[in-house]
Amino acid sequence: VGRALARLLLDRQEILSRRYGLELRVTAILTGSHGFLMDDAGADLRSCLSSPALPERGEPPPIRSWPADVLVEITPLNVATGQPALTVMREALKAGMDVVTANKGPIAHGFHTLTALAQEHGRSLRFEAAVADNLPLFNLVRAALPAVELRSVRGIFNSTTNYLLSEVSRGAAFETAMARAQELGIMERDPSHDLHGWDAAVKAVIINNVLLGGALKPADVDRQPVNGEVAALARGAALDGKRVRMMSTISVGEARWEAATLGPADPFYAVDGFSLGAEIVTDVAGRLVISLHDPHVEQTAYALLADIIDVVGHQGQ
Amino acid sequence: VGRALARLLLDRQEILSRRYGLELRVTAILTGSHGFLMDDAGADLRSCLSSPALPERGEPPPIRSWPADVLVEITPLNVATGQPALTVMREALKAGMDVVTANKGPIAHGFHTLTALAQEHGRSLRFEAAVADNLPLFNLVRAALPAVELRSVRGIFNSTTNYLLSEVSRGAAFETAMARAQELGIMERDPSHDLHGWDAAVKAVIINNVLLGGALKPADVDRQPVNGEVAALARGAALDGKRVRMMSTISVGEARWEAATLGPADPFYAVDGFSLGAEIVTDVAGRLVISLHDPHVEQTAYALLADIIDVVGHQGQ
Repeated sequence: VGRALARLLLDRQEILSRRYGLELRVTAILTGSHGFLMDDAGADLRSCLSSPALPERGEPPPIRSWPADVLVEITPLNVATGQPALTVMREALKAGMDVVTANKGPIAHGFHTLTALAQEHGRSLRFEAAVADNLPLFNLVRAALPAVELRSVRGIFNSTTNYLLSEVSRGAAFETAMARAQELGIMERDPSHDLHGWDAAVKAVIINNVLLGGALKPADVDRQPVNGEVAALARGAALDGKRVRMMSTISVGEARWEAATLGPADPFYAVDGFSLGAEIVTDVAGRLVISLHDPHVEQTAYALLADIIDVVGHQGQ
Repeated sequence: VGRALARLLLDRQEILSRRYGLELRVTAILTGSHGFLMDDAGADLRSCLSSPALPERGEPPPIRSWPADVLVEITPLNVATGQPALTVMREALKAGMDVVTANKGPIAHGFHTLTALAQEHGRSLRFEAAVADNLPLFNLVRAALPAVELRSVRGIFNSTTNYLLSEVSRGAAFETAMARAQELGIMERDPSHDLHGWDAAVKAVIINNVLLGGALKPADVDRQPVNGEVAALARGAALDGKRVRMMSTISVGEARWEAATLGPADPFYAVDGFSLGAEIVTDVAGRLVISLHDPHVEQTAYALLADIIDVVGHQGQ
């Protein structure tokens, strides 16, 4: 995701300058095991992309000394605690940076405390990329659904299991579909994150806590594992012109993830393969369905960029 | 739409005050043939809703003397010129009001000049309700797709013909479906606006001119009329598990409205009856599809309210 974001920043330089008068500089890059870089004048992203590692080694300086207005946090997910991202994001907000993240963990575990910290320091916290690439769930609610009460959210938020069931519907054996997903690099390192619904549970918690005012934890989410039994259900449904989807259903203070057999009249029937989708049921704004078709890592990077542009826009005010 | 907006304003009073510290007052209401009302202190909407007409008769005072920060324009569509709404909106912008409208005509005919006028006077122009009730097309692009180039937009923007073809697919005769649509009051007063695609053409022009940078006119849009032939196509498709939709396809400087036969894998298959939908194809943000299911006049009113909240929010800055 970091490399995709670097490519996107290079690609969008001209449009950012022309449309928004924005010149974004990357003044620090920190990685887990490929070193770090700090440069007030802005890193040369082209040369970073062509190198296997960053120039500096050892312990990077503390966050409060980083020369940045925005922290972009994209470390891997820790389902149980949201760490170390949660601490890094707290430090950045305290140091007066806006925070943009693609990491579900800290938002699932710390949304309310991070939001309070952001308000205290007059900064913004954005995390569109954490749930469904650039499917605009939070931006849509914020920008297009003011003065609305959300009743529930239903959706497909785990693309790996959606890919597996789509392949099985087309006739693949479950084991073959699993092997393909691993080849494509779309399975989480720990397959249970996808198959046992932890990825979906963390996303459901975020949606519940952010959009429906709840305070759930990942363990509160009912999860049906994706296994040979669900695959058999999908295979049978296909014979009947139907499709099985792992649907997240989230209402106030309650969330579950389970297999649902959908006919063609259901808007999620067409959300196939890697695609993602969300249905938002409201009190006065009707029922909206939004889907993102066949996203790649470039779309995760774009979600980060959209959030960066948003928070940088607010800094000027 | 005006009465639905009045009901919604009453219903949302508490939430507007609590969430946004907003107290919206309706200081003037002007109608075509039911009189007008002006009241600096704010009209009593409950009593307006219970009366068949407003208290004042005769010629209302000129716009520049209206005691308002926002003009909400909801007069009927004039496809050929966009008048008289276009002149009213120009006057309001010149008088320093923001303008919110559900009227397609002035946006199709005057988007570029109205936008220039709004910029000149530091005011906003919003028209989400003009194209697809509160399907957030313009708000979505503005809020969630910054720094993106739109390649094309495809969608179902005329709910009357979508209702007709949905009924025919379910076995109704075309004439019966027409009669039902007229009973429900969903046909435009001149049925050719719906059936010959003028409504869809005006919306396609708005989408083209606003989102794709074009300068089309309604007459530039290729339109296939909805008639017994299209109904027969829909009936035949239904036997085959498919659905016929009148799809608007809009790319830079080009737009058409025509019958398309869709299988269940197409996201617009599930956009049935009065529902509306749009697919947005972008360069770096992937392919997004958004649909609004079974909207009523309350959703048109909501789109106006969302735009009012947006422009009033900008006034404080």
